[in-house]
Amino acid sequence: MRWAVILAGGSGSRFWPLSTPLAPKQLLPLAGPQSTAEATIDRLTGLVDRDRILLVTGRHLAGPLQDRLGLPPDNVLVEPAPKSTGPALAWATHEARRRDPDAAVLSLHADWHIPDPAGFRRDASRALDLAERGPWLVTVGVVPSRPDAGFGYLVPGPEVDGGFRVAEFKEKPSAELASRLIAAGAVWNSGLFAWRAETLLTQVAAVCPEMASALPHLDRGRVTDFFDGCREVSIDVGVLERSAAVAMVRGAFAWDDVGTWEALSRVRPNDAAGNVLVGDVTALDSANVVAWTDHTPVVLAGVRDLVVVSANGRILVLDRARAAALKSVLDRLPPRIREI
Amino acid sequence: MRWAVILAGGSGSRFWPLSTPLAPKQLLPLAGPQSTAEATIDRLTGLVDRDRILLVTGRHLAGPLQDRLGLPPDNVLVEPAPKSTGPALAWATHEARRRDPDAAVLSLHADWHIPDPAGFRRDASRALDLAERGPWLVTVGVVPSRPDAGFGYLVPGPEVDGGFRVAEFKEKPSAELASRLIAAGAVWNSGLFAWRAETLLTQVAAVCPEMASALPHLDRGRVTDFFDGCREVSIDVGVLERSAAVAMVRGAFAWDDVGTWEALSRVRPNDAAGNVLVGDVTALDSANVVAWTDHTPVVLAGVRDLVVVSANGRILVLDRARAAALKSVLDRLPPRIREI
Repeated sequence: MRWAVILAGGSGSRFWPLSTPLAPKQLLPLAGPQSTAEATIDRLTGLVDRDRILLVTGRHLAGPLQDRLGLPPDNVLVEPAPKSTGPALAWATHEARRRDPDAAVLSLHADWHIPDPAGFRRDASRALDLAERGPWLVTVGVVPSRPDAGFGYLVPGPEVDGGFRVAEFKEKPSAELASRLIAAGAVWNSGLFAWRAETLLTQVAAVCPEMASALPHLDRGRVTDFFDGCREVSIDVGVLERSAAVAMVRGAFAWDDVGTWEALSRVRPNDAAGNVLVGDVTALDSANVVAWTDHTPVVLAGVRDLVVVSANGRILVLDRARAAALKSVLDRLPPRIREI
Repeated sequence: MRWAVILAGGSGSRFWPLSTPLAPKQLLPLAGPQSTAEATIDRLTGLVDRDRILLVTGRHLAGPLQDRLGLPPDNVLVEPAPKSTGPALAWATHEARRRDPDAAVLSLHADWHIPDPAGFRRDASRALDLAERGPWLVTVGVVPSRPDAGFGYLVPGPEVDGGFRVAEFKEKPSAELASRLIAAGAVWNSGLFAWRAETLLTQVAAVCPEMASALPHLDRGRVTDFFDGCREVSIDVGVLERSAAVAMVRGAFAWDDVGTWEALSRVRPNDAAGNVLVGDVTALDSANVVAWTDHTPVVLAGVRDLVVVSANGRILVLDRARAAALKSVLDRLPPRIREI
């Protein structure tokens, strides 16, 4: 049967001061009235049964996520420790296999904005088809809409089984290199993966020493021991970039990871001056501003290229060009201000 | 005896959203821990007895001002209607003469920042000396510190009685003309005036048709009738610019009318990057920002040349170059936002 594993961790810093540890971006109505976590569940309708959706998250978020998403309690998997995506996906995939030895797993994130759910289902289904046909770890490469230096890129190789081999992974290239990669047919590594559970666990054992020796703990149901025995490692670096079993399909759906305040200008309507205004914001003679207020009225006059946020008792006024570097701003704040 | 008349009206819009109709700028601790209204009273110590200080204001401000300043209730004069400085000063001067037929009046505003009170008292005393010596309406011209286009300028003429005649009034010249005027010895028309009560009232009757015919109402104690009978007119336009009895002395004290958010950068300490930060403001890689917050923490990152204010449940983010035009910004706001 087909299963989905949704990664829903997150420290809640990218949309500070709106996002908080207990309300990280996947629980916020950033791209529209629905949070991306809710939209992620809805998007799977018709592709994966609701009771075969597993959610992996940290202890502090398990309650808020379950309240919001209404999944069966047994389907919310609480990581004993954050060790990046490798251990989380190995565990959740192992859990799917425990419940269903023939499990094919679609792995995705709770914080994506995908305005075309039907296109998503079509391409995700093709990825699952390919994963079910052969012993492939299938990545869905999203056709880039811009030379974004913040993503990883997949360079396609020869065709196999209705998909392609991955010739190369390029993590966060320069914008210039990204443009060249795109011209050569490279796609974004979206983090949307598909594999048979058996295939992933075999590959982890074969290529990922950061996790391999800890895998037997999962067979004995000792999740904490498994995490203790793993080193922090992403699924990309730990498995996909090392395995010979990686294939890809092209995803034609629009995809955005809504990773910064700046991203709101891509996923929300802009006014004629390029402003994105959410909440009680009045903009006069202002351009290219992303502004969000939870309730305090905000007036902008004669300003441009800013991010302005009032939320949770904090006000942020940020150069828009620094939106991607917000974390380094937060690192310089005293805890009294930083912590909400 | 020497009297002082302090004009303390004001609509409370120049420092929106901090200033409000009930807390206009003269009641706010803008330039330091003390409000300018309190500093104005203190500054008169030794020059004018406290019980000879009259304050003219509107009905809504009489209570807050008296609470804050502790003047005798009879000394707070409530204008029946706002008709600019002409009727206010004519009435208050008339009132001083009613209490003291030999009254000499020093007229000043409640919203000035004067860091050198001793220098102020010295020059104000010289102005009173001149007013007591002859039938002069004496203006104190402040030596300009910059070619500010927002002020009126006085061009000095020939010497008289230890002062100068005023050869010309230039209201709000261009910055270029202001520079030329300053080079030629012109000074700012600060609004600090001195006259014998008798002199002013004689001149009003002689040169100011907007008020002259209403003056007899004051003799009969009918203040409302006086205001009803006056047209709105400033003392400068209605009397000083028309009278042949105008003289001036040079004021060497530093003077600022703290007329805009921008002015805070002149009257408060700047950090090394030219920021003026009042309240819980953290500025990272930011320059030339005037920021004020009443309690909500504000974080600035990578921004410059802004005014950022959080006060009274409103947030303003303004191009610093527009600080002088804040009123035109407010005029474009819906009352729901504008009114605090």
